[in-house]
Amino acid sequence: MRAIEPVPETMRAAVLHAYDGAPESLRIETRPVPKPARGQVLVKMFAAPINPSDLMFLKGLYGLLKPLPVVPGWEGTGRVVATGDDWFSRMLLGKRVACAAPNKYDGTWAEYMLTSATRCIPLSDTVSDEQGAMLIVNPLTAWALMEIARTSGARAFVQTAAASAVGRMLVRLSQKFGVEGIHIVRREEQAELLRSAGARHILNSETPDFDKQLRELCHQLQATIAFEAVSGMTALRVLKAMPAGSRLILYGALSESPLMADPRDLIFERKRIEGFWLADWLGKRSVLGQLHLARQIQSMLGDLLASEVAARYPLSEVHRALADYQANMTAGKRLIVFAQT
Amino acid sequence: MRAIEPVPETMRAAVLHAYDGAPESLRIETRPVPKPARGQVLVKMFAAPINPSDLMFLKGLYGLLKPLPVVPGWEGTGRVVATGDDWFSRMLLGKRVACAAPNKYDGTWAEYMLTSATRCIPLSDTVSDEQGAMLIVNPLTAWALMEIARTSGARAFVQTAAASAVGRMLVRLSQKFGVEGIHIVRREEQAELLRSAGARHILNSETPDFDKQLRELCHQLQATIAFEAVSGMTALRVLKAMPAGSRLILYGALSESPLMADPRDLIFERKRIEGFWLADWLGKRSVLGQLHLARQIQSMLGDLLASEVAARYPLSEVHRALADYQANMTAGKRLIVFAQT
Repeated sequence: MRAIEPVPETMRAAVLHAYDGAPESLRIETRPVPKPARGQVLVKMFAAPINPSDLMFLKGLYGLLKPLPVVPGWEGTGRVVATGDDWFSRMLLGKRVACAAPNKYDGTWAEYMLTSATRCIPLSDTVSDEQGAMLIVNPLTAWALMEIARTSGARAFVQTAAASAVGRMLVRLSQKFGVEGIHIVRREEQAELLRSAGARHILNSETPDFDKQLRELCHQLQATIAFEAVSGMTALRVLKAMPAGSRLILYGALSESPLMADPRDLIFERKRIEGFWLADWLGKRSVLGQLHLARQIQSMLGDLLASEVAARYPLSEVHRALADYQANMTAGKRLIVFAQT
Repeated sequence: MRAIEPVPETMRAAVLHAYDGAPESLRIETRPVPKPARGQVLVKMFAAPINPSDLMFLKGLYGLLKPLPVVPGWEGTGRVVATGDDWFSRMLLGKRVACAAPNKYDGTWAEYMLTSATRCIPLSDTVSDEQGAMLIVNPLTAWALMEIARTSGARAFVQTAAASAVGRMLVRLSQKFGVEGIHIVRREEQAELLRSAGARHILNSETPDFDKQLRELCHQLQATIAFEAVSGMTALRVLKAMPAGSRLILYGALSESPLMADPRDLIFERKRIEGFWLADWLGKRSVLGQLHLARQIQSMLGDLLASEVAARYPLSEVHRALADYQANMTAGKRLIVFAQT
């Protein structure tokens, strides 16, 4: 092991004991600081966001279930303070990085995280610690979805949960690339937010003539691809509104309900349903391709792919941060920030 | 118009007045016999089956809604007794044909049906009037699904409603082509029926350990494609049981419920959902290809693609035929037969 500073024996961490979504199942505890082996790095955390995928994870609804007890948190920023004794990991020693949690072990809601060197992206000086903490999950997802829309042959796309972090990035990306988007929200404030961001086609799914309006817009703009993050009846309504032969791509399930679809849309209208998972999409790229992408993304974190931060909480207040986020996700991200010692 | 025999002015027909599934919405009435124009033929009907797609049609759940009032019935057999004055239609004059109803107009549950010459298949002498009446919907669907299974790269397939007419044909085709099938039924008698037909992997979805057994079988046999005709929770359970990357192809909705799917299967396991409609599948073939196929299918109507007939009813008893069929679809087809005058 190589280190640039003394690493303590123990750290504070948020530890999940049951996948039941109960606040008492997540506890702040003292844990040993792990030691990096070959190919691994130890990141001293600066900041870590709460994403919808974290909420799903806490409830056991995320695709990956890690062995319990476990530290949640899928992404964050920090400094690599110790590494394994291999060449690749040592290159990162002392570097500020955006980092993703390993698939099976502890995540970013702790003072230190052990992860694979390949899951770290060195940050350029123009990217702040806070921005870097939100580099991976949302910006890469938005970028990937826009790439799928642009290469799909669709003239326009539909998106649900359009006021989410990913949704707002998609609004900006669609303007930049000149791709028409139909943006679906659930509340009038959300529609207002997107309107002020320059979005043209915004529909509120709670209005009485929503289905008719969506159908007309989808046919008029030839929107034959949908990015759907709500699931349940929302998926059914969106798929029904789109022209024959359309694709619905599910990338989230905010409603926590099974996806529904009208059999007639599938059988008689050749509509299709599939899913999107960032890890799969990234996995199809080479390491060099991923590095190039990481640089591109960093250059856009200030504008196109910026995330709004609504509030910052110390790790000890993670429960308050979670409650705050769930009460109003549209307000922006809640960051867990760690004292810089 | 050319004719081989005098055509009466009026006929008896089952006429649907509302898409509500109510028995009183379907009435036996006297209607004018239509006259064929160019490209059209008038078929004097011998027999017409009741298929699941007819039940869906009566309730307005089928993909195509025809303007009301309308004669139901998607397929049947008969003799072409009059045709339009073009060369192609005249070739069919006097011929015994299997015929499909037009997409917008009256169907086969009447003494005469007007349809396009291209929707008729001349029958070889070896095919009986009754067999010919069930040539199109079920045998072609079973044949198409087997072709999809064989060209999909899947080592094995799953099918639901496996004791249906299509399901039983798939059991026989899978034996002929050496493709392993997992056949799902809802009742023990249905399992017994398939067992006596030589099916090896039969599961009853009403047994307590069905989901576990299905999962084990799907992974063991690498069943990565499913033909699903029930919709609702059945689709969810089947998709969940299959290996990552699997495809579910919906071709029916016997439960009359929206299809459901677990978002995790779509997002994290790359599973996909699509539909199958015979008309689309046929439309991708050339006219010659369709003729070749029709000949192939006819040669198999005696065994591989045979339909069991449970009972025959005159047109006047169409309500009894419908009630009988709905009470026990597994028993076999109910045919509407017309007096041969």
